[in-house]
Amino acid sequence: MKLHEIASRLEVELEGNGEIEISGPAGIENACSDQITFISNPKYSGHLKTTAAGAVILAEDAPPCPIPNLRSSNPYLTFARIVQLFYAPPRPVPGIHPTASVCESATIGEGCSIGANVVVSEEVQLGGNSVLYPGVVIYPFARIGDRFIAHSHSVVREHCQIGDRVILQNGAVVGADGFGFAPLGDGHFEKIVQSGIAVLEDDVELGAYSCVDRATVGETRVGKGTKIDNLVQIGHGSSVGQDTILAAQVGLAGSTHVGDRVILAGQVGVAGHLSIGNEARAIAQTGVARDVAAGRTVGGYPEMEARAWKRNYLILKDLPKLVRSLRKLEARVAELEADAGGGESETD
Amino acid sequence: MKLHEIASRLEVELEGNGEIEISGPAGIENACSDQITFISNPKYSGHLKTTAAGAVILAEDAPPCPIPNLRSSNPYLTFARIVQLFYAPPRPVPGIHPTASVCESATIGEGCSIGANVVVSEEVQLGGNSVLYPGVVIYPFARIGDRFIAHSHSVVREHCQIGDRVILQNGAVVGADGFGFAPLGDGHFEKIVQSGIAVLEDDVELGAYSCVDRATVGETRVGKGTKIDNLVQIGHGSSVGQDTILAAQVGLAGSTHVGDRVILAGQVGVAGHLSIGNEARAIAQTGVARDVAAGRTVGGYPEMEARAWKRNYLILKDLPKLVRSLRKLEARVAELEADAGGGESETD
Amino acid sequence: MKLHEIASRLEVELEGNGEIEISGPAGIENACSDQITFISNPKYSGHLKTTAAGAVILAEDAPPCPIPNLRSSNPYLTFARIVQLFYAPPRPVPGIHPTASVCESATIGEGCSIGANVVVSEEVQLGGNSVLYPGVVIYPFARIGDRFIAHSHSVVREHCQIGDRVILQNGAVVGADGFGFAPLGDGHFEKIVQSGIAVLEDDVELGAYSCVDRATVGETRVGKGTKIDNLVQIGHGSSVGQDTILAAQVGLAGSTHVGDRVILAGQVGVAGHLSIGNEARAIAQTGVARDVAAGRTVGGYPEMEARAWKRNYLILKDLPKLVRSLRKLEARVAELEADAGGGESETD
Repeated sequence: MKLHEIASRLEVELEGNGEIEISGPAGIENACSDQITFISNPKYSGHLKTTAAGAVILAEDAPPCPIPNLRSSNPYLTFARIVQLFYAPPRPVPGIHPTASVCESATIGEGCSIGANVVVSEEVQLGGNSVLYPGVVIYPFARIGDRFIAHSHSVVREHCQIGDRVILQNGAVVGADGFGFAPLGDGHFEKIVQSGIAVLEDDVELGAYSCVDRATVGETRVGKGTKIDNLVQIGHGSSVGQDTILAAQVGLAGSTHVGDRVILAGQVGVAGHLSIGNEARAIAQTGVARDVAAGRTVGGYPEMEARAWKRNYLILKDLPKLVRSLRKLEARVAELEADAGGGESETD
Repeated sequence: MKLHEIASRLEVELEGNGEIEISGPAGIENACSDQITFISNPKYSGHLKTTAAGAVILAEDAPPCPIPNLRSSNPYLTFARIVQLFYAPPRPVPGIHPTASVCESATIGEGCSIGANVVVSEEVQLGGNSVLYPGVVIYPFARIGDRFIAHSHSVVREHCQIGDRVILQNGAVVGADGFGFAPLGDGHFEKIVQSGIAVLEDDVELGAYSCVDRATVGETRVGKGTKIDNLVQIGHGSSVGQDTILAAQVGLAGSTHVGDRVILAGQVGVAGHLSIGNEARAIAQTGVARDVAAGRTVGGYPEMEARAWKRNYLILKDLPKLVRSLRKLEARVAELEADAGGGESETD
Repeated sequence: MKLHEIASRLEVELEGNGEIEISGPAGIENACSDQITFISNPKYSGHLKTTAAGAVILAEDAPPCPIPNLRSSNPYLTFARIVQLFYAPPRPVPGIHPTASVCESATIGEGCSIGANVVVSEEVQLGGNSVLYPGVVIYPFARIGDRFIAHSHSVVREHCQIGDRVILQNGAVVGADGFGFAPLGDGHFEKIVQSGIAVLEDDVELGAYSCVDRATVGETRVGKGTKIDNLVQIGHGSSVGQDTILAAQVGLAGSTHVGDRVILAGQVGVAGHLSIGNEARAIAQTGVARDVAAGRTVGGYPEMEARAWKRNYLILKDLPKLVRSLRKLEARVAELEADAGGGESETD
């Protein structure tokens, strides 16, 4: 596709030679002369001198550039849309595969693709234009919106509710039993029936093997537009707000409430019964043991303000030096004391 | 159901109006006037003033309460049983689904429900009244007790042994290969056949995608009544005692032994070849690198006594202040030294 | 099997009575009189006095031993091969199970075993002598080499490439969508089509539920001979070198490059866009936030040289003592200052 054609399809401004042929998008370090790349963060603009890319997407206010380029108010988004111009995943065939087991009492919307060995149980409602890849299992009474995409081995458990345009990567589980056991007093535990549900609102994506547990009573909820990476655990009775990002291997214990537009980086853990305010952030591996106020960024274990944590880290790295300073000082004070004592004895 | 009916079914004492109609259980913050809630921990009794709940379960020795209430020696357990009064999960149909593949040499107990696309391999023994949800796979020679519940995509690997009343949440795997490779000396590794098994004793529950690896030789074992949350890793040759709790995303490396009634909170990691004594506990995200004696509570990374860790955290938070104190003190000592030197020179 | 027979099969030297009958291998602490065990690390040679093992594998240069023994330049490897002498996993039947769905356009090599409910999609190429256990799903256009072993519920996504002799434990996923979303500026996110692939080179093993995400553009790659344990996350666009070991629950964010013969212990997290040099190591739970040079060993959170981290830990454990030292010193200085002040007033 010629560069000017890309520019006109995406309605962005072209600077330089629009006649060059672009075969696809690439990262800035790997791009070849027939590929287009992007610079979203000005701190990477040094790469412009070394990249072999044939074209580049730049911010509207970026300085002039010798490489043919497209100007965008959101270069990363423009790049994302170019990826889509050049690639579409294989389309599953519409219809119900003969090996699928779809219960008669289930309601399936129009235009769905139900793959091999898929199981749709009794009383399930599934919206139109959905794709269930091979091996997906929908338990009884689940209610699912339109344009649902469920990759192989993902599961929606009994009574759970899912909005429109939700995506489950492979093996994501909505509504497995919450971890609830009542101590019997003799050291044993009795399982508490998890009678609640899990709810995913519109436009949620769950990564591979991520788990949103059903609640003991009531619900566990993930808000509209929230994106969750692989191997994440959302404990029972928790809620996650809208447009929040949970990176891989994050874990939320039960009954914890995470706000809107929050970002929790990889492997962050959050204890139970906490509240994390809107737009709060946590650095990777943070162990959150207390409430986090809206807009704060935390790091460390247990968490503290990220700035404090980074500052402390610099001290920690040099901790032995600190100890040596203290020891030296003790020696100096001892000497002063000896002198003073000597002085005293002299004055006696 | 009327409150007095609940009281008599659960054989607990009723205080207040037993004629009110209860529609179900709820958490104390969300409960409505037709719902019953509970207070297990006296520190939450302040909620009694604000809850809209129609009834509440209290400890036998709790002070009088204006809300109609049930008195229990174990309010949480009573609550758990009320949940069960009001909710039962959909019951799978008994019998073998026509799409299931059950080997002729397998022995299936009475009253089992074998769902769609379930695979039961040769020589498997499965106890009575078990439920295998769609997509469960039992490898050859596995021996499983009665009342086994295996949710979709859970797996029992070859030769593994499972007691009675075990529950596997979705995708739990018993007996995947342990992580064993012999270095060849040239930088490459040779896979070591994992010839051992994994054993789950009676009443164990494994969370979604939790893995109990098979041993290289011998066995990996999880003791009676132990409850394991989602995404937990139990390395090969390890053992976990009875009535132990492993929260989500905990990882045990190989050949580590965890005692009875231990509690490891979320994301705790335990190195290999260690021993964790009975009733020991670890705070969330603890990195356990040494043996932990029975009854101790540890925290931190690497682990230390939890109390020490919490005390240290308070110091760590103010580490820059500590450094400033030291610097100030150094300045003061320098001044004293200068004075002393001056004094000395004066007295010379 | 007699001990001398084992010695001659494995071509190692025998010391002592070769006529004893060996029923199998065992760990040194559990071995019985008809079992053979091994000592690889001289620090465990004290166990020779207490073990009940009938025979033992020793290093060639180990001191003489009263127990019948085999001498090996690599005792652990010899042990691994003895395990294999005594145990072979049940062999799946060759051929295609009647419940498998194999697309006509797929190419299946000779000698493959395709289990129940396996799905092989259009245009897939699968090498010879491969085993797909029940419930495996291969998405369209995947290209897979010879002697592939895929345990139940493992998945190879569209267009991904896999070398020879690769093993996927249960539920391992190659090529699920990378976690890529473009912020729209209004707080919402737009999914970026993940057009790249994931590549596993020859002899790679992935543990249960480990995920190697597909790249946004280009590829995510795991090098020849690398072994990855359970529940590991490899973010999109990352690469892992050859003969590298990633223990359970490790997470690599996106676009991070890990070298050859690296060892990352359990629960290590590595931030995005970093580089970890050849033969580098990270202690369990390390949070790697910067590049790690070849050959270095790091620990801590964020990471530092492992030696520094261990030294610091000793100080940290005694942090309150350090604070007390400082406070005492302050008091002593205050006294000196008072004396000096007093002295001054005296000399006035």
